[in-house]
Amino acid sequence: MDLTRAAAEALDAADPVAAFRARFAGAGEDGLLYLDGNSLGRMPVATPAALTRVVEEEWARGLVRSWSSWVGAATRVGDLLAEGVLGAGPGEVLVGDSTTVDLYKLLVAAADARPGRDVLVCCADDFPTDRYVVAGVAQARGMTVREVPADVDEGLDHSVLAAALDERVAVVVLSAVAYRSGALADVAAVTRAVRDAGALVLWDLSHAAGAVPVDLAANGVDLAVGCTYKYLNGGPGAPAFLYVRRELQEQLRQPIWGWFGQRDQFAMGPVYDPVPGIERFAVGTPPVLALAAVEVGARLVAEAGVDRLAAKGRALGELVVALADDWLAPHGVALASPRDPARRGAHVTLASSAAWQLTQALVDRGVVPDFRTPDRVRLGPAPLYTRFVDVWDAMACIREVLASGVHEGYPTERSRVT
Amino acid sequence: MDLTRAAAEALDAADPVAAFRARFAGAGEDGLLYLDGNSLGRMPVATPAALTRVVEEEWARGLVRSWSSWVGAATRVGDLLAEGVLGAGPGEVLVGDSTTVDLYKLLVAAADARPGRDVLVCCADDFPTDRYVVAGVAQARGMTVREVPADVDEGLDHSVLAAALDERVAVVVLSAVAYRSGALADVAAVTRAVRDAGALVLWDLSHAAGAVPVDLAANGVDLAVGCTYKYLNGGPGAPAFLYVRRELQEQLRQPIWGWFGQRDQFAMGPVYDPVPGIERFAVGTPPVLALAAVEVGARLVAEAGVDRLAAKGRALGELVVALADDWLAPHGVALASPRDPARRGAHVTLASSAAWQLTQALVDRGVVPDFRTPDRVRLGPAPLYTRFVDVWDAMACIREVLASGVHEGYPTERSRVT
Repeated sequence: MDLTRAAAEALDAADPVAAFRARFAGAGEDGLLYLDGNSLGRMPVATPAALTRVVEEEWARGLVRSWSSWVGAATRVGDLLAEGVLGAGPGEVLVGDSTTVDLYKLLVAAADARPGRDVLVCCADDFPTDRYVVAGVAQARGMTVREVPADVDEGLDHSVLAAALDERVAVVVLSAVAYRSGALADVAAVTRAVRDAGALVLWDLSHAAGAVPVDLAANGVDLAVGCTYKYLNGGPGAPAFLYVRRELQEQLRQPIWGWFGQRDQFAMGPVYDPVPGIERFAVGTPPVLALAAVEVGARLVAEAGVDRLAAKGRALGELVVALADDWLAPHGVALASPRDPARRGAHVTLASSAAWQLTQALVDRGVVPDFRTPDRVRLGPAPLYTRFVDVWDAMACIREVLASGVHEGYPTERSRVT
Repeated sequence: MDLTRAAAEALDAADPVAAFRARFAGAGEDGLLYLDGNSLGRMPVATPAALTRVVEEEWARGLVRSWSSWVGAATRVGDLLAEGVLGAGPGEVLVGDSTTVDLYKLLVAAADARPGRDVLVCCADDFPTDRYVVAGVAQARGMTVREVPADVDEGLDHSVLAAALDERVAVVVLSAVAYRSGALADVAAVTRAVRDAGALVLWDLSHAAGAVPVDLAANGVDLAVGCTYKYLNGGPGAPAFLYVRRELQEQLRQPIWGWFGQRDQFAMGPVYDPVPGIERFAVGTPPVLALAAVEVGARLVAEAGVDRLAAKGRALGELVVALADDWLAPHGVALASPRDPARRGAHVTLASSAAWQLTQALVDRGVVPDFRTPDRVRLGPAPLYTRFVDVWDAMACIREVLASGVHEGYPTERSRVT
């Protein structure tokens, strides 16, 4: 691999999604080398106008009369994600609530669908909220949690997971892309193995959606949730999506019964009677403003195409890995993601005992990575708006900081939020 | 009562909160007589700029670095509501999730706190989501629901509720202001009676917050939730608030365990260990954009003062009732709210067999009420931005429509959302 800046420029010149960069605010203007698209995606240029339309036209002028449009927003944006991002069918995806609430709803529903089974399986290195939701549901129901160990760098070994599956397992909760290492699970194989064991798998697609193809229908996925503020660029705290395979929808009991899951909602009938279809997984009034922002972000991903984004994400990751090997390894920085690009999502993680000091030094120099306790620096060059030269320049800055030792002057104790 | 338009003008001239009208978009300009503030409040003039600041400065420019401000938003807006609107203390109110999800969280937590008790009580005429949440939780836990009948017009009779309380009752869910009739519950007396029975009451303040003083501390309330898109003007689908009396917070087990309820959240520890205080009732990533809009609306209510708003709301209601008696009763329209203003919230409901046709005719004439099945028209003249002459003009329009019979040309079947 040619590791010159000119080679990175050549990759940018040949990039089929390069034009999308101009559709994000700040990209190319703010001087930031933003490698945290895996945490909070940049703002699409079109978002402020979409919000203005919702607040100034629909809310301020339309007032309650706008409900004729708002009432379908959660499924409209869901269908957009289904077709353009997730490889699912219409009526299989709904947007609303937080990722954690959606995880809870589908986990409880799935556990109810496997009566007599008393074990929930999760991955010991999964994102905290996934593990906490599993622990909370297990405690409330008197179930046992089986935490499958994962190699922190390489992700879950499928044979280790297979060994944890037996007739006691009701539900398995897993992330398609591991938040710490970026390790990509084999969604189809795991789904098959879990189904063969008589259990259901609930996928968390937070670090996958918009970054890698998840092909929910083709992979036979039953249940999934995911975040829209990372690679989908829906904005801070944007509502999550949930997916339930059509055939399963009416077999599942959604545990939080609210008026937006009710058949003929405005009849306000005496008895809860869930609407057929994906809307039975809705709960309260949909977050109208936030949905407008999600819609803009999702449209951009759909327009660029997940396959093209994944290919670029993989190439960006390969550049990170090659430069890390060449420039950073001599400074004691090690790759903490799978080396095989086919086993990675769109972020690459580095391990360094000085990870926190390094993160602070980089942020002060306009390079924004993402620190993850205790010793990891995640680099998430989102393919929609990050150039190969951005990665090159950011890696050069990391090399400079490490070579100069300037990061050693930063606090070792964490005192600020990242 | 002087029922001339001049008398209404005189009331406006003496209105101490009249100036707030200019701080809402459209009020006085759009020609609408908007009497649906009890469903969706108008947009504050300051909201678009607040959203612009969040998206263009904090998100687009600040990116993840803005988390230092966002991470406290749910409690910052909660404290604002606590002090300025709800009569609660700092650290007792949190904003996030939908009203239904918040109801669910607190209901499950309250039921867990009363082990051995197997009955949940709710009101047969309460808002659907309240009844559905109660039914869903009861079904999942093998509990029994005791639905207390309420007079649809007059609200809950406290002696009927008292008769439903016994040693089997774990939790009572009630609305402080009934969504259909506007009937105001005696929050202090009911809270006392339920507590004396050894149970907990969970108040839904959706139709009360910002319209009447709820004085949570003074009334000894333990648990409450409420909506921010009605009298608090937070925007369509704005996140709800929840209140837990400080002394109870650490006794309760919040059922949806997520990373925003975790102590030292960014340590991402292996075991869920809820943070002390109100944040243990948080779940996922807070809805940052929506919180900015809630903050603007809440500030306006706090600045105007709930007592002044409640006094004006009551006076507006008295004008509605007087005009309905005088002008509409001859057309078969009956008051369907408590006649005693001390027993009403800020909306007044009328009953008419032609309610749906009437609603459609009014909307086409720029008068926006709110239809509630099967035969009710709710008039919610929000005191922050509705003038006495607006009520007068709206009632005159209703009279005109009824007198002309023009509403009889509208469909009797509901085909559009309100």
